[in-house]
Amino acid sequence: MTELRLADMACPLDARYYGADPAFFARLRPYVSEDAFIRCQLQVELALAEILTEYGVAPTHFADEVARAGGSIEVRHVYEEEERIGHVVRALVNCIRERIDEPLRPFVHLFATSNDITDTATALRLKALTRDVLLPDLQVLQDALIRLARLHAHTVQIGRTHGKYAEPITFGYFLANYVARIGNRIDAIEAARRNLRGKFSGAVGAYNALRLKFRDAPAIESALLRKLGLEAVDAHVSTQVVHPEYVTDLVHALVSTFSVLANLADDVRHLHRSEIDETQEIYDEARVGSSTMPHKLNPKNFEFVKSMWKEFMPRMMTVYMDQITEHQRDLTNSASSRFVTEFMTAFAYSVVRLTSAVKNLGVQERSMRRNFDEASAETLAEPLYILLSLQGHPDGHGHARRLMRKSRETGAPLMDLIRAEESLRPYLERLTPDQRRALEHAENYTGLSAERTEIVCDQFEAAGRQLLDRLDAERREQERPRQKLQGA
Amino acid sequence: MTELRLADMACPLDARYYGADPAFFARLRPYVSEDAFIRCQLQVELALAEILTEYGVAPTHFADEVARAGGSIEVRHVYEEEERIGHVVRALVNCIRERIDEPLRPFVHLFATSNDITDTATALRLKALTRDVLLPDLQVLQDALIRLARLHAHTVQIGRTHGKYAEPITFGYFLANYVARIGNRIDAIEAARRNLRGKFSGAVGAYNALRLKFRDAPAIESALLRKLGLEAVDAHVSTQVVHPEYVTDLVHALVSTFSVLANLADDVRHLHRSEIDETQEIYDEARVGSSTMPHKLNPKNFEFVKSMWKEFMPRMMTVYMDQITEHQRDLTNSASSRFVTEFMTAFAYSVVRLTSAVKNLGVQERSMRRNFDEASAETLAEPLYILLSLQGHPDGHGHARRLMRKSRETGAPLMDLIRAEESLRPYLERLTPDQRRALEHAENYTGLSAERTEIVCDQFEAAGRQLLDRLDAERREQERPRQKLQGA
Amino acid sequence: MTELRLADMACPLDARYYGADPAFFARLRPYVSEDAFIRCQLQVELALAEILTEYGVAPTHFADEVARAGGSIEVRHVYEEEERIGHVVRALVNCIRERIDEPLRPFVHLFATSNDITDTATALRLKALTRDVLLPDLQVLQDALIRLARLHAHTVQIGRTHGKYAEPITFGYFLANYVARIGNRIDAIEAARRNLRGKFSGAVGAYNALRLKFRDAPAIESALLRKLGLEAVDAHVSTQVVHPEYVTDLVHALVSTFSVLANLADDVRHLHRSEIDETQEIYDEARVGSSTMPHKLNPKNFEFVKSMWKEFMPRMMTVYMDQITEHQRDLTNSASSRFVTEFMTAFAYSVVRLTSAVKNLGVQERSMRRNFDEASAETLAEPLYILLSLQGHPDGHGHARRLMRKSRETGAPLMDLIRAEESLRPYLERLTPDQRRALEHAENYTGLSAERTEIVCDQFEAAGRQLLDRLDAERREQERPRQKLQGA
Amino acid sequence: MTELRLADMACPLDARYYGADPAFFARLRPYVSEDAFIRCQLQVELALAEILTEYGVAPTHFADEVARAGGSIEVRHVYEEEERIGHVVRALVNCIRERIDEPLRPFVHLFATSNDITDTATALRLKALTRDVLLPDLQVLQDALIRLARLHAHTVQIGRTHGKYAEPITFGYFLANYVARIGNRIDAIEAARRNLRGKFSGAVGAYNALRLKFRDAPAIESALLRKLGLEAVDAHVSTQVVHPEYVTDLVHALVSTFSVLANLADDVRHLHRSEIDETQEIYDEARVGSSTMPHKLNPKNFEFVKSMWKEFMPRMMTVYMDQITEHQRDLTNSASSRFVTEFMTAFAYSVVRLTSAVKNLGVQERSMRRNFDEASAETLAEPLYILLSLQGHPDGHGHARRLMRKSRETGAPLMDLIRAEESLRPYLERLTPDQRRALEHAENYTGLSAERTEIVCDQFEAAGRQLLDRLDAERREQERPRQKLQGA
Repeated sequence: MTELRLADMACPLDARYYGADPAFFARLRPYVSEDAFIRCQLQVELALAEILTEYGVAPTHFADEVARAGGSIEVRHVYEEEERIGHVVRALVNCIRERIDEPLRPFVHLFATSNDITDTATALRLKALTRDVLLPDLQVLQDALIRLARLHAHTVQIGRTHGKYAEPITFGYFLANYVARIGNRIDAIEAARRNLRGKFSGAVGAYNALRLKFRDAPAIESALLRKLGLEAVDAHVSTQVVHPEYVTDLVHALVSTFSVLANLADDVRHLHRSEIDETQEIYDEARVGSSTMPHKLNPKNFEFVKSMWKEFMPRMMTVYMDQITEHQRDLTNSASSRFVTEFMTAFAYSVVRLTSAVKNLGVQERSMRRNFDEASAETLAEPLYILLSLQGHPDGHGHARRLMRKSRETGAPLMDLIRAEESLRPYLERLTPDQRRALEHAENYTGLSAERTEIVCDQFEAAGRQLLDRLDAERREQERPRQKLQGA
Repeated sequence: MTELRLADMACPLDARYYGADPAFFARLRPYVSEDAFIRCQLQVELALAEILTEYGVAPTHFADEVARAGGSIEVRHVYEEEERIGHVVRALVNCIRERIDEPLRPFVHLFATSNDITDTATALRLKALTRDVLLPDLQVLQDALIRLARLHAHTVQIGRTHGKYAEPITFGYFLANYVARIGNRIDAIEAARRNLRGKFSGAVGAYNALRLKFRDAPAIESALLRKLGLEAVDAHVSTQVVHPEYVTDLVHALVSTFSVLANLADDVRHLHRSEIDETQEIYDEARVGSSTMPHKLNPKNFEFVKSMWKEFMPRMMTVYMDQITEHQRDLTNSASSRFVTEFMTAFAYSVVRLTSAVKNLGVQERSMRRNFDEASAETLAEPLYILLSLQGHPDGHGHARRLMRKSRETGAPLMDLIRAEESLRPYLERLTPDQRRALEHAENYTGLSAERTEIVCDQFEAAGRQLLDRLDAERREQERPRQKLQGA
Repeated sequence: MTELRLADMACPLDARYYGADPAFFARLRPYVSEDAFIRCQLQVELALAEILTEYGVAPTHFADEVARAGGSIEVRHVYEEEERIGHVVRALVNCIRERIDEPLRPFVHLFATSNDITDTATALRLKALTRDVLLPDLQVLQDALIRLARLHAHTVQIGRTHGKYAEPITFGYFLANYVARIGNRIDAIEAARRNLRGKFSGAVGAYNALRLKFRDAPAIESALLRKLGLEAVDAHVSTQVVHPEYVTDLVHALVSTFSVLANLADDVRHLHRSEIDETQEIYDEARVGSSTMPHKLNPKNFEFVKSMWKEFMPRMMTVYMDQITEHQRDLTNSASSRFVTEFMTAFAYSVVRLTSAVKNLGVQERSMRRNFDEASAETLAEPLYILLSLQGHPDGHGHARRLMRKSRETGAPLMDLIRAEESLRPYLERLTPDQRRALEHAENYTGLSAERTEIVCDQFEAAGRQLLDRLDAERREQERPRQKLQGA
Repeated sequence: MTELRLADMACPLDARYYGADPAFFARLRPYVSEDAFIRCQLQVELALAEILTEYGVAPTHFADEVARAGGSIEVRHVYEEEERIGHVVRALVNCIRERIDEPLRPFVHLFATSNDITDTATALRLKALTRDVLLPDLQVLQDALIRLARLHAHTVQIGRTHGKYAEPITFGYFLANYVARIGNRIDAIEAARRNLRGKFSGAVGAYNALRLKFRDAPAIESALLRKLGLEAVDAHVSTQVVHPEYVTDLVHALVSTFSVLANLADDVRHLHRSEIDETQEIYDEARVGSSTMPHKLNPKNFEFVKSMWKEFMPRMMTVYMDQITEHQRDLTNSASSRFVTEFMTAFAYSVVRLTSAVKNLGVQERSMRRNFDEASAETLAEPLYILLSLQGHPDGHGHARRLMRKSRETGAPLMDLIRAEESLRPYLERLTPDQRRALEHAENYTGLSAERTEIVCDQFEAAGRQLLDRLDAERREQERPRQKLQGA
C-alpha cells in the first residue's frame, strides 16, 4: 500500500475534514478505517475459533493460536493477499492460516461463509462507533444547547412564522425545542444501535454447513454472537445476509437527526442576517470573512452543517436500494454498503463543528430586544382577539384585524387604538390583572416559554446522563474481546 | 366543486389505481380524501369544544352545538369559503360559526392556531389509516406468505447468490425470510404509528393563548388530545408544528417496508424467467400477455409493485426536507406534507396487488426440481470442503475447488471423482451417516430450511393475531368520538 | 367508470390544485389525462393505418375507417375492454377492430408491439404538453420578471451574501439574474423537447415483424413517425422501448428549472421577512393570514412553490431508476413512467402560481432604501480596498479591515475615518471623479447593475418572442393529424 | 499536513478504489485532488495577473512574478495559512504575495472576489477532467463494446421482455443498443462540458469592483476567461456565483450515463445466471469466488458497477439542492459542491472496471444457442400472427394464441400444429420464400439485428474518433497556460 498525502485524496471528507483534523481523526480511525473493519473481522474469526474450541471441534489451543496470529496481522498483509486471490475475506483467512501450525489450519473459518464474518463485523463496528463517538458527541452538543437554553430561558425573542413576526417566546424556548428534538433522536439512534444483529448461518442462511455437525445450529450462532455482544437475526432466519432493515433503521435514525441539526443550522444562519442580527459566530482577530469585502463576518460553521446535510442526506436512497438483494443475495450492495461508515464519519464531523459553533455563539441581546419591540405593536392582536372572545365578543378576530390594519396605516400604537375604542371597554374591564398585563406588554405574553425551557432542560439532561452511563458500561464490557486480540 | 371523470385526473394513482378499483376506493376514501381530512379537523374542533365546555369557558350546550353543526358541514362548504378568504382552517371555523347561535360563536376555535387543528388532525388520520388499512392489509399479505411457506416447507430449491447456484434451501425457507422481514417491519410501523402526536400549544408553541386562561396549559392540551386517542409532543415543547420526527419515522417504517415488498417482487419476477421457470402468475383464459406476441405470460403484478416502489420510495427525501422548518415554522412544508397520504395510498394499493399476486402464484415444482438437480453437482463442493476440514484435512477448500474444476471440465459427476480419489478415503470413512447422506444427495443438505420455516411461520402468525386484536380494540374505542360528530 | 368528487381523490394535486382550478384544468386536461393518453395512442394507430394504406398493405379505405372508428372511442370503452382482457393497448386495438368492417380488422395494429404505440404516444404528448403549456407559461413568468426588472433597473438594493450585507446592486439586477437563469432553462427544455423520439421497431426492437414485409424497415418507421412530427431513436436501434435517455433529459431540464423557481421563491420569501420587508405579496381585503394571529400577511404563494419543489424534485430519482430496464425491457417502469405527466402538471401549476405571485408582488422601496442605507456604512470597505490597491497601497485589504472594525466599535462613519487618516490622503487624491463618487455614496457603487439589467431583459425578451413563434408554427402544423381523428 | 496510510481513510473510494489502484490514481490525481484544485486557482490568479499587466494596471513584470511565485507554492503552504486565517482563497493570495516583491503585492487578486477564483477554477478542472479522463475512458469502453458487437453481429440470441422469451435478436444487436445509448450520452456529456462557464464579476456579480477601473467590465472578464479556454456566464449576469445550471447539466449528463452503465451491468449479470449462462466473467486460476463454496464464479465486476451506481446516483439530489443559493449567494453549497469531483472519480473508476469486465467477458455461445432453441418453439407465434394478418386472416392473433397454447399443453412443435391446421393452408401458400423461412426457423426471424449492428458500430466508431481528435486538440492548446505556471 502506498503512502500518500491527504491533499491527494479524491474525497473532500478525507482530504479536508476527517483527515485534516488530527483530534477527530484519532477518535474516528479505530472505527471507520479499513484497518478497523479488518480488525472487527478478526474479532469474529476469533469468536468462531473460541466456539470451535469450546465445543471440541478444534484442539484446545486453537483459539489462543488464532488470537496470537490475529494480533500480528496488518491490513496490508490482507490486501496483498487479496490482490493475489481477488477475495478479501478468504485473504484474511489465509493470513491467519499461514501464521498458525498446519494441523490447526483446517479449523480457521470453518462453517463460515464470508458474509457471516463481514455482516457480523459490520454490526460490531457500527454499534461501537455509535456508542463511543456518535452518541457521546451528540450529548456534548445537547449539553451545550442546554447550557445556552438555561442562560436565555427568560431572554425575550419574537417568534417568527413564515419569516414574519408571530408571537413572543424566549430565546431559551427556541433552543429548548432543539433540546427536545435532539433528545428524541438520541433515543431513536440508541434503539436502532442496540438492535443491530449478526449472523452465522452460512452461504444461504439455512445453517447448511453448521448443521453438518450441530443439531441445534441456531444455539451455536447465538453463543458465538454473544461473545461479541450481539444477537442473531429475528427468528434465526436469513439469507446469506443479515436482513438489511437493522442497518437501514440506524441510518434513518442518523439521517433524521442530521435534518434536525440542519434545521438548527438554518435557524441560526437566519438569525445572523444583517437585518435580524440576533446571533453572531465569534471569530478571532486573524480571521478573514471575504477576500474582497473586508467587513464580512459570516455564519460559516452553520452554513457548513447545512451543506453537509445536503451532501449526505440523499444517501438514504442508497440504503433503501440496498434493501433489495436478489434471492439469497447478490453483490450489488457490496461497494455501496461500505459507504455507511463514511456517512457516519461525515455526520460525526458535522456534530463536532456544530457543537463548536454553538459554544462560540454570540447572542446579541440588544438586537433581539430591538426586534421584539418592533414586533410587539403587532403581536398584541392575538391576545386581544383571544381575550375579547373569552369575554364573548361576537367577532374578536375580525375586530382585532381591523384595529391592526388601522394601526398599520395610521402608525398609531395598537394599545392606543384599543383604549380609544369605546365598544371594547366592557370586555377589557373584566380582564384579570394577568390578562391585562399580557395585553399591555408583549414580554408578558411569552406563555410558558421560560418555565418549559427549564423543565425540558432538566428532563433531557438527566436522560443524557443515564444514557452515557449505560454506554460506558457496555463499552467497558466489550473491550475485553478486543484486548484479547490485541494482547495476543 | 366540479364533478369529474376519473379519466380526467392528472395523477395515475387516482385515475388508474385508487380510483379505478371500487373496493379499494371505498376502503381508503374515509382516510385519504380531502373530505376525510376536513372531517378529522372537525373532530379536533369538537374535542376543543368539549374541553371549553367542561372547563366552563363556554356555555354547557356549546359542544353539542358544535357536534351538530359539524355533522352538516361538507367539504364543498369549506372550499367555497376558502375560495373567498384564502385560508382553509379559518374557512372551516367560519362554517361552524355560521351554523351555531351567535353567542356561541366566539368560542369556536378559541385558543387554537390553525396548525393545532391540522397537525392534530393529521396525526389522527395517519394513525387510523395505518391501523384500519395498512397494518391489517400487510397482515393479509403476511398470512398468504405463511400459507405458501408452510405448503412448501420441504420443497427443495437451489439457493442462489450472485444469481449463481449456491447451496440448497427449500422454497418455504425462501418465503420464510420474507415472513420474518415483513413481520419485523410490521412491528416498526406499529411502533411509529402509536408514537404519532398532536399539539395544542398555539401559534409559536409556547401556549401563549392558552396560558391567558389556564396556568397548567399542558394539562389542558393533554386532556384535549386524550379525547382523540393521542398524546402531546415529548416534554410539551414545540414550535407552531408538531416536531416532524414522529411522522418522519412512520414514513420511514413504510418506505423500508416497501423495499421489502419490492425485494419480494423482484425475487419472484426472476423466478418467472423463462430459463428458471419456478413460478408463474396464474392468468385466466381471456388475458392477453402481449399485443403482438401471442405466447407471452408476464409477471406483471410483481413488476407493478417494483415500479410503484421506484415511484414512491424517493418521496422519503421530501419528508426529510420537510423536517426543516424555519424558526417557529415556515409554510414550505404545507403542500408537500399533504402528499403523505397519497404515498400511503400507493403503498396500500401495492400491498393489495402483491397479496393477490402471491395468492395466485403458481409454483412450478417440476422446474424447481430440475434446476435443483442441475445445481446439485456443484453444490456438493461446500459440504465436501467442510467435512474434509472437520476431519482435519489440511486443505479442504483447495481440494474441493480442484475436484470441482475437474468435474466441470470432464463432465464427470463430483461424487464419482470424490470416490475415485484415494487420498480422501480416510476422511470420508469417518463421516457419520447423516454427514454421508448430505454429501450424497443435495436434498439432504438443506440445513434447517424446513424446521425453521415452521418455527418462523408459527411465531409470526401468532404475533399477527395479537396485533390485529389490539388494533381492533383501539379502532372500536376510537369510533365513539367519530360517531358523535356524524350522529349529531 | 364511476363519477367522483374531487374531494374524494387521494392525490392532493388532483383534489386541491389541478382539479380545483377550472382554467388550469381545462388547459392541462387535453394533455395529461388518461383520456389524452388514449387519444395520442389512437393518433399513432391512425398513422400506422395510413402507412399501411399508402404502402398497399391494407385496402385504400382502411385509414379513413380507422380515423372514423377512433373518433368514436372513449376512454371508458377502452377501460372496459382492459378490465376483461387485462392489457390496455390490446383493449384499444379491440375497440378499433369492432368498429370497422371485418375484412379490415387484420390490419389494425399490424406489425406493432404495444410499446411502439405507447412510447410513441408518450413522446407525442410530452412534446405537445411542453410546447403548448409549459414553455408558453414559463415565458409568461419570464415576461412578468422582465417587466419588474426593467421597472426596478435603478432601484438600489443591498446585495447579500451569507445573509449578510455585501455590496450594492439594484433590485432589477437581482431579478435579471432570474431572467437569465430561466431563459437558459427554457432553452434546455426546448432542446430536450425537440429531441423526444418515437419508435416502430417491434417487440425486441430489431424490426422483426416489419422486416417480414419491408426490406428497409427503418424507412417505414421514419415515414410513420414523420406523420406525428417525430423522429426515430438515434441510429434506428432500440429494444422494445425508446431509449429512456430522451425523456430523462426532458425531466432533468424541468427539474433543474424547478430548482431555479424554488430559488426565486426562497429569495422573495426572505425579502418578505419582517425585519427585511423589501417585498410583500399583495392580498385583497377579505384574505386571512392566520386563524389566530389577525396581523399576519404571509408570502404563501412563494412558500407554495418551494413546497412543491420539495415534493417533486426527488422524482428525478425515479426517472434515473427507470433508465434501467432488463434486456429487451422489463415492465418495472410501466406504472412509474405514467407519473411523468403528473410531475409536469405539478410543475405547470407551480409556474402559474409563481407568475401570479410575481405579478402581485409589492416592492417596498422605502424598506429597500432603509436597508441599503444601513448597509452602506460597511460596504464602502470593498471600494476602499480596491482603490487603495489600485494606487499601489501595500496593504489595502488589511487597512480597510482595520478602519471597518474601528467604525463598528466607535460608531464613527467609515468615510469620516477615511478622511481622518493622514496616511491615506496621497492615495485618495489620485482618484478619478467617478472613483471618488463610488467611495462617497454606496449608490454610486452598484457596478453595472442597471445597464446589464436592460441588456439582459432585451436579450431574453427577443429570444422569448422567437421561441413562441416557432412553437406556435409547430402547433398549427401538428393540429392537422389530430383533427383528422376528431373530425372523423 | 500528516502523512497517512490509505487504510486510514474514511471514504472507501479513497481507501479501496481510487487510492488502491496506482495507475488510476496517477491519472486522476492531477484533476481531483485538493492539490489540483489549488493549482487551478493559481492558474486563474495568473490569468488575472496577465490581464492586469496587459491593461497597464500592474507593472510589466507582475505576471511573470506571479507565475514564478505560483510555481513554488504547494498545497500545504496554503493550508497552513488557511489554518491561521480561516479563509482558503485569501490564504492562497497571501502565499503569492509573500513570494513576490512588496510593490507588486497590491495587485495580486485585485478586483477579484474569492468565488471568481474558485468557480472559474472549478469550471477549469471539471472541463479538463472530463476532456482528459472521463470522455476518453468512455470511448475505450465504447470501443470494447463495438468490437464485441461486431464479433457477435450474427450470434443469435433470444430477446427477453419481462424476463420471458420474446423474439429473436443477435447478441451483437443487444450490445449495439448500448453502443448507441453510450454514444448518445457521450454527446450529452461533451455538450455540457463545453458549456461550463467561469466568471469575474465580483462579490455580488455586478462588476462593482472592476467597474471602478474599466467601463466595459464584461469585456475584461471575457479576455481573462479566454486565457483559460472558458466563456462567461450567459448574458454576463450573475450573483457571486456562476449560475449553478452549467455544472448541474454536466452532473446530470454523467448520472444518466451512469444509469446506462448500470443497465448494461445488470443485463450482463442476469446473463450470468446459472440457468441462463450466456456470459461468464473470465477469472484467472488463483481467484476465489467464495470463502465457503469452492465452485462459485461470480459476475462481481458487473455487480460492482451497479453498486457504485446505487451509491452515487442519488447525489444528483445534492446538486439540485445546491442550485438554490440565497440572494447573492449563501455558503451552504460550499462543502457539498466539493464532492462533485469525488462523484466524477467514482464514475471514472466504474467506467474502468466495466471496461475491463467487458474485455474479459466470455460469451457462452453454446448456452446462447441452447436457450435460443428452447425459445424458438414459442417465438414463432408472432410471425405466424403477422403473416396470417398480412394475408387478411380475420383473427391471426387469436389463432396464433390458441395454437401456442395447444403446443404448450401437448408438447407438439408449433410448426407441426400449423401444418396440420387445414384452415391455415391458404394463407401459408401465399407466403414469399423469405416469409416462409422466417416461420420455419427462428434464426431467420432476427429482423435487422445483424445489419443494424454493423451500421451502429460504424457510426459510433467514427463519431468517437472525431471526438477524441477534438479533445486532443483542445488539451494541447490548454496545456500552455499550465506549463507557464509550472515552468515558472
